Amino acid sequence: MSKDQTAEQGQETVTAGFLVIGDEILSGRTKDKNIGYLAEYLTELGIDLAEVRVVPDVEERIVEAVNDLRARYTYVFTSGGIGPTHDDITADAIAKAFGVDIDFDPRAVAILKNFYPEGQLTEARLKMTRIPEGADLIENAVSKAPGFRIGNVHVMAGIPSIMQAMLDAIAPTLRTGRKMLSRTVNADLPESRIAGALKDIQDAHPGVMIGSYPRSIDGRFNTQVVVRSRDEELLTRATGAVADAVAAAVKSE
Amino acid sequence: MSKDQTAEQGQETVTAGFLVIGDEILSGRTKDKNIGYLAEYLTELGIDLAEVRVVPDVEERIVEAVNDLRARYTYVFTSGGIGPTHDDITADAIAKAFGVDIDFDPRAVAILKNFYPEGQLTEARLKMTRIPEGADLIENAVSKAPGFRIGNVHVMAGIPSIMQAMLDAIAPTLRTGRKMLSRTVNADLPESRIAGALKDIQDAHPGVMIGSYPRSIDGRFNTQVVVRSRDEELLTRATGAVADAVAAAVKSE
Repeated sequence: MSKDQTAEQGQETVTAGFLVIGDEILSGRTKDKNIGYLAEYLTELGIDLAEVRVVPDVEERIVEAVNDLRARYTYVFTSGGIGPTHDDITADAIAKAFGVDIDFDPRAVAILKNFYPEGQLTEARLKMTRIPEGADLIENAVSKAPGFRIGNVHVMAGIPSIMQAMLDAIAPTLRTGRKMLSRTVNADLPESRIAGALKDIQDAHPGVMIGSYPRSIDGRFNTQVVVRSRDEELLTRATGAVADAVAAAVKSE
Repeated sequence: MSKDQTAEQGQETVTAGFLVIGDEILSGRTKDKNIGYLAEYLTELGIDLAEVRVVPDVEERIVEAVNDLRARYTYVFTSGGIGPTHDDITADAIAKAFGVDIDFDPRAVAILKNFYPEGQLTEARLKMTRIPEGADLIENAVSKAPGFRIGNVHVMAGIPSIMQAMLDAIAPTLRTGRKMLSRTVNADLPESRIAGALKDIQDAHPGVMIGSYPRSIDGRFNTQVVVRSRDEELLTRATGAVADAVAAAVKSE
């Protein structure tokens, strides 16, 4: 990417929605690891993850969520439901959401034929080559069966290692916005001790977002104050004000 | 709960939606721990978690999501945004979603007055006593500031230890359905080797849901087949068929 492109792209905000598909997440059997990974990854790229939804392996629920999210955000990412078994219905649901046909894709078939030994490309594995009409394939460096992109929707596997590899394949194709910068101020105080000061600092610094994240460590309350902005100078000024407020509160304890 | 009540309640399906509120989850700074916990907790109670959404600390996004979810599901649970700082806007957003007033609640004020030493109930902490009109309080055994229930919506804190304590306070008040039972069959095979058999077993066993969950352990693919049903006898029969199919596939490797 040239410097000019970066500067130009830097002006806009690029947003994303993430759709996690799978009964196993909703039953609690599998603990999701993809939301946190994708969130961090997109923030690093300069894309704002604006919403996440988790829905079951039910066609109408997937169709509804994909159509809602793709109308709202620059990009949509999905994870889960593109494997070889009967409960993997994501590709067909995405085709339905876009109102396009779906069939065995010669490019995907060629990839799997090349990967599996003679006679091992079973009917079940072939199912993984069903790709909606008009979609581009997304490379899968781990287990070869590809994901796909159609419109602004990127369809990825649910296994974390495969989703992560697919994301690396997708990243260079994404437009990115001006990166959100952040600094954290640690406060060994319950957040209520600094709440008033934080509100004043927030009011005085438009263009900066101040988040206060309490946690309890061995029963002691501690607060992480996260200051975010796309403007480095604004960020430095607001972070300084927060650090001063925390120091004053600690002193008055 | 009497046996008769259990039997009666056992006939219906009870559903839930979960709304996670917080910029920190969407930026990836905080990794959510509440989705997996709530999912497992509700499954154990006999309540089907049917959808999860994560939205930022933006009033209209919270209002829209709460109103959508509460119309769809028996219960809605929310986590996050009920602390003392300026970015904690959940209580006000919920009042707006229900079209009711919100004010300092005398019951909540009494709880905090009783908890904090003289002079420590600051303006910021008092903010945590803002409760929508008509809501019931949810006890917070950890740090006292209560959550609340209004209509079918349960508003909880985002800190995992506090959310978990609030959930324990809520649980006895919930209607529950007939519990979903599950059994897992481990298959030391990639899922494509058993996909055909699983599809046939699924087709032959209505009332049973068969999920296939591949994972990779040190580069070797392994599949967990999870069989679920509310009917113990059906479950036993389908699980037996899956175990037989897995054994046959292993033998033919």
